Amino acid sequence: MFTGKGAIISPSAILGKNVRIGDRTIIYDNVEIGDNTVICNDCIIGEPLTAYYKDTDNYNNPKTIIGADSLVRSHTIIYAGNTIGDHFQTGHRVTLRENTIIGSHCSLGTLDDIQGNSRFGDYCRLHSNVHIGMHSVLGNFVFVYPYVVFTNDPTPPSDNLMGPSVGDYTQIATGSVLLPGIKIGKHCVIGACSLITKDVDDYMLAMGSPAQPVKNIREIIDRSTGKPHYPWPYYFDRGMPWSGVGYDKWKNETEK
Amino acid sequence: MFTGKGAIISPSAILGKNVRIGDRTIIYDNVEIGDNTVICNDCIIGEPLTAYYKDTDNYNNPKTIIGADSLVRSHTIIYAGNTIGDHFQTGHRVTLRENTIIGSHCSLGTLDDIQGNSRFGDYCRLHSNVHIGMHSVLGNFVFVYPYVVFTNDPTPPSDNLMGPSVGDYTQIATGSVLLPGIKIGKHCVIGACSLITKDVDDYMLAMGSPAQPVKNIREIIDRSTGKPHYPWPYYFDRGMPWSGVGYDKWKNETEK
Amino acid sequence: MFTGKGAIISPSAILGKNVRIGDRTIIYDNVEIGDNTVICNDCIIGEPLTAYYKDTDNYNNPKTIIGADSLVRSHTIIYAGNTIGDHFQTGHRVTLRENTIIGSHCSLGTLDDIQGNSRFGDYCRLHSNVHIGMHSVLGNFVFVYPYVVFTNDPTPPSDNLMGPSVGDYTQIATGSVLLPGIKIGKHCVIGACSLITKDVDDYMLAMGSPAQPVKNIREIIDRSTGKPHYPWPYYFDRGMPWSGVGYDKWKNETEK
Repeated sequence: MFTGKGAIISPSAILGKNVRIGDRTIIYDNVEIGDNTVICNDCIIGEPLTAYYKDTDNYNNPKTIIGADSLVRSHTIIYAGNTIGDHFQTGHRVTLRENTIIGSHCSLGTLDDIQGNSRFGDYCRLHSNVHIGMHSVLGNFVFVYPYVVFTNDPTPPSDNLMGPSVGDYTQIATGSVLLPGIKIGKHCVIGACSLITKDVDDYMLAMGSPAQPVKNIREIIDRSTGKPHYPWPYYFDRGMPWSGVGYDKWKNETEK
Repeated sequence: MFTGKGAIISPSAILGKNVRIGDRTIIYDNVEIGDNTVICNDCIIGEPLTAYYKDTDNYNNPKTIIGADSLVRSHTIIYAGNTIGDHFQTGHRVTLRENTIIGSHCSLGTLDDIQGNSRFGDYCRLHSNVHIGMHSVLGNFVFVYPYVVFTNDPTPPSDNLMGPSVGDYTQIATGSVLLPGIKIGKHCVIGACSLITKDVDDYMLAMGSPAQPVKNIREIIDRSTGKPHYPWPYYFDRGMPWSGVGYDKWKNETEK
Repeated sequence: MFTGKGAIISPSAILGKNVRIGDRTIIYDNVEIGDNTVICNDCIIGEPLTAYYKDTDNYNNPKTIIGADSLVRSHTIIYAGNTIGDHFQTGHRVTLRENTIIGSHCSLGTLDDIQGNSRFGDYCRLHSNVHIGMHSVLGNFVFVYPYVVFTNDPTPPSDNLMGPSVGDYTQIATGSVLLPGIKIGKHCVIGACSLITKDVDDYMLAMGSPAQPVKNIREIIDRSTGKPHYPWPYYFDRGMPWSGVGYDKWKNETEK
């Protein structure tokens, strides 16, 4: 890896210090990559929009920004027009369509398909094979598990798209589907295979198809410990900014 | 792109006028590609069947046809033995197995997995990550949304496969699964996350797991406009042949 | 294919007799591949773990073993640290993370995503787009159909992961989700789109969301023949070791 074999880097691309580009990876026009970032083999960064194929000569590629200290794994395709923060990480074969804004410390899993025109806060983690439809909004610390789909068209087909929005710290378990325009609050937990057809209030566990509110997340008991597990920032800190500090202390300092 | 780096094109392939082939794309024996079609980087067109790996020397690749004015995006794999009409479009990393017939103006989304031996009419649109099992039949103007699966084996494992069939204009929303041999009529709407266990009559909205018929699609109200939205061809025409003409007028002229 | 263009093979890799390596495929350090195995184009075998990207110079790649007579189709990524038996087969774009042990005669379908630290018996068949979370255990002859997910975190996010386990001969139909730590017995059939929230006894048909036991699999009737179909080894033998012998005879001889 990083033998430089067959990589193509546009003369207009701006690479930070210590950036490594994998074999056969293509960096298109107007891409900016921050210091120490690794782009692995066979990636496409700044993939041109459809207009490029129709009139290649007159096409002008929108700016694409990937922050510092990031790791983009092999076969990932990031379209032009995205702005991504520092400490970004992907699995393999991620597709990120155009015009999405992603905060810092976010990760996208293998086979994730982000359809564009969406917005992610900081520290979002999407596991493998998540599909985010256009116009979705994710807060900070939103974790999404495999095979979850965010939809956006209430009367398909139409051009009246409305993305779902999800509040800070919310966890959306495997196989759940969010209907168009749904709002899920902060610190919620959505059970596996739920179909979210109505808004979900802050701090609620909701589940089922269609999903119903079940109880306050503070009442969920971790069967292995017999203790509560939510709000989860009190019980989990791997890779989180409150790691080694404690959530309350970090929160108080952050909110100052 | 289209620097010709590392592309391999079989001498027996027939490329129309103005065809562009991306870097490292492989065009195997007996492939025919229509005028103005673009095949992007890292695609495989005419992927040989399993027999090739067992006896490479005596293998004869079946004919593969892709129509004119098509756009096949990067990392797509189209097996030998497929016949695809004009104005075909794919997302990235589509897999299309052998012996499927696809009409004109169809599109397959990123990560779609079409298992072969199926038949698509004209103007079908499959969104990302749709799985079509063998022996499926789609009419014209069938739109299928992400994570829908067409199954085909009622008693797995067996060799007694029966694909589902779907009528003209039907819309199948995100995450639905069609059981083997199911027949869905024309102008139907299937709600998100439905499990289709029984045939669905023309013009029905069906939803649930297992799905039940709910009402005639003409009774569905678009909440944003307060008006009906189905049959959808009266309310949506982007990319459709009745665009700028009106559905009734187009239909009358087509049926003459 | 197999023109050797751009393939990179580590000097420490051990390739058996008659092994063929596709174009641009990368074989990393400490990979062992058995006789007659075919690795197609654009694969990565022995993909380094995350530590490699952090300190490339001091990284030592764990051993990766792929058995004889195997066929790994294009764009598949197999991480370092896996041990895979003979007669292994994959579709395209499979991802197999580290430290999984896979028996002989297993196949993984297109887009399968195996998260690592799992264990498969012999003759397991995973169809397309299956996601196996870490710490899962599959017996022998377990068949899994598209869009099935094995989960492992009962209180996400946490580091308290518990994979599901599935007994010999069990069939898990399309779109089902197994909750963390669930145990499914042997010779079970799980219906499509089931959410498995409780353990399932041997020889049971279970289905629904949440799934309920429905009946003994011996009572399932194949509608096309009017006869039973389970236990399936009496009715299906393609590619199975009892093919041409009969299941009972094979079983008696095996158990001697």
